[in-house]
Amino acid sequence: MSEQLTQRQQTINAVIEQQLAALPDSAPELKAAMRHAALLGGKRVRPYLVYTTGKMLGASDEQLAPAAAAIEYIHAYSLTHDDLPAMDNDELRRGQPTCHIAFDEATAILAGDALQTLAFETLSQAEQLSAECRLALTQQLAQASGYLGMCGGQAMDIAATDSEISFDQLRTVHRLKTGALIRAAVSMGATVGGASEQVKRALDKYASAIGLAFQIQDDILDVTSDTETLGKPQGSDSDLNKSTYPAILGLEGAIAEAERQLQEALHALSGLPYNSDNLAEFARFVVQRSR
Amino acid sequence: MSEQLTQRQQTINAVIEQQLAALPDSAPELKAAMRHAALLGGKRVRPYLVYTTGKMLGASDEQLAPAAAAIEYIHAYSLTHDDLPAMDNDELRRGQPTCHIAFDEATAILAGDALQTLAFETLSQAEQLSAECRLALTQQLAQASGYLGMCGGQAMDIAATDSEISFDQLRTVHRLKTGALIRAAVSMGATVGGASEQVKRALDKYASAIGLAFQIQDDILDVTSDTETLGKPQGSDSDLNKSTYPAILGLEGAIAEAERQLQEALHALSGLPYNSDNLAEFARFVVQRSR
Repeated sequence: MSEQLTQRQQTINAVIEQQLAALPDSAPELKAAMRHAALLGGKRVRPYLVYTTGKMLGASDEQLAPAAAAIEYIHAYSLTHDDLPAMDNDELRRGQPTCHIAFDEATAILAGDALQTLAFETLSQAEQLSAECRLALTQQLAQASGYLGMCGGQAMDIAATDSEISFDQLRTVHRLKTGALIRAAVSMGATVGGASEQVKRALDKYASAIGLAFQIQDDILDVTSDTETLGKPQGSDSDLNKSTYPAILGLEGAIAEAERQLQEALHALSGLPYNSDNLAEFARFVVQRSR
Repeated sequence: MSEQLTQRQQTINAVIEQQLAALPDSAPELKAAMRHAALLGGKRVRPYLVYTTGKMLGASDEQLAPAAAAIEYIHAYSLTHDDLPAMDNDELRRGQPTCHIAFDEATAILAGDALQTLAFETLSQAEQLSAECRLALTQQLAQASGYLGMCGGQAMDIAATDSEISFDQLRTVHRLKTGALIRAAVSMGATVGGASEQVKRALDKYASAIGLAFQIQDDILDVTSDTETLGKPQGSDSDLNKSTYPAILGLEGAIAEAERQLQEALHALSGLPYNSDNLAEFARFVVQRSR
C-alpha cells in the first residue's frame, strides 16, 4: 500500500510543482507561501482517491490530474487557514513550520485564499474534459468544501471546542469537516471515469465509511502515537479540549468503531463490476496506519 | 446615477439575501457572519457593472444574477480577509463593525473562505446559462481574483507597505488588487450578453480605465473626506504608510490622472454599436463620487 501511495504522491506533487512553477514571479512571497502550503508533504489521500477511483473506471492520468490537483489545493488551503493563530494555532505540521510561521499571518491567509481560487481555476481550465464534466467537478468540489461541507464542519468544530458534544454531533462535524472532501475525491474520480449512478452510489457509501474511519484513526493516533511519528505535537487535540472519538467512546470503543467503518467500506465495494482491490487496500490502510 | 445604483443595489441584495437564507442553519454563527460580510452595504459596483454591461447587450436580469452575485461574494470575502488584524486591521467598514469585530477572527476567516466557495458554486449551478458560458465565467472570475489578480495585488500591496514604491509599481498593484475584479465584472456581463470579441476588447479598455479611476478616487477621498462620510477612519491608508496616488502624484496630480482615465473610458465606449449611456454615466460617477 505504502508503495502505491508513495508513487501517487510523486505523481500529484509533480502536477502541483509544475502548475505552481508556471505562475509568474509577480508576488514572490505569496508564490513561495502557496508552494509551502501545497507541497508540505502529507499523505495526498484525496488525490490518491481521485486517481484510484478514476483509473478503476478506465480514466487516464491526464484526465484525472485536474481533479486531483484541485482537491489537494482545497485541502492545503484549509490546513493553512486551520493552522492560523485565530483557529488551531499550530506551529508545526508534518514536522515542518506551518505557513504563518514560515512566512507571516497575512501571507498565510492570502496563500490559502489563492490556493482555493486556483482549485476552481484548475477545474475550469481542464480542456481535456468536457464542459459538462468540468462543471460537475466544480459543483462537487464547491459543495464539499463550502458552507454545506468542510467550512461548515470547521465552524461546528470551533463551536464545540470547550463544550460537551453528543456522539451524533461529533459524527456530523466529521462528516462535514473531513468526510465531505473524502467523498468528493471519490465522486470526482467517478465523474471523470464516467461511472453510472448505481456505481456512484456504491462508491459514495465506501467513501463515507473511509472518511469516518480516517477521522477516528486520526483521533486514536493523537492519543496513542508520539510527536515525532505524527509530525505534530502528540495530544494537541485533547489539549484543546476538542471532542474526539476516544474521548467519547473510550480508546477500545473508538478502535471498534473504526473497524466497523472498514467493514462497511469493504461491503460497499463488494458488488462493483470493477477490480476494486486498490480501493479495498486503501480502506484497510486508513485504519491500520500509524501516522 | 445614484438612483440607478440604488435600484441595482436592491436587486443584488435581494439575490444575495435569498441565496444565503436558503442555506440550512447547521452552522448558525458562520451563516450569520457570511450574511454580515455579504450584506454590509456598499456600493455594489461590481454587480452594477455586470448588470449594466449585460443588459446593454440584451441579457436578462435572471441570466445576469449568478455572475452578479458571484463577483460580489468574491469582493465580500476579500474585504473580510483584508480587514483582519493580520492584514489591514480595520474595525469599521461602511460605518459598521467589520466581520471579525462583530463575530471573531476564526469565524471571519471561515466566512470569507465560505463566501469564496459560494461564488464558484453559484456560477457552476447557474442552470439558466449554457455549460460553456458558466465555464467562461468561472475562468474569468478565478483569474481575476487569484494569484494573477486580486490576491497577487494584495500581496504586492502588503510588500509595498512601509517602503518607497514607483508610480509603475503602484499602477500594477491597483491593476491587480482592484482593477482585475472591475474588469471581470464587465467581461462577465459581456460574456452572459454574448458580446463579440471586438466589443469585449472595447469594453475591457473601458473597464481598465474606470478600475484605475476608481482606485485613484478612493485614495483622493481618503485624504479629502471625513470619517463620517467615508464610513471608515479618514486617513487610514496614509496612516499605514500605504503608497497612494496623492502621495506619489500630489493631490492635484491625482485628480488630473483620474480625469484622464475617465476620458479614456468614455473614448472606449464611443465606438460601440449599443446604447452605452449607462456605462458612460457610471464612469463619470466613479470620479465624481464623494464616498
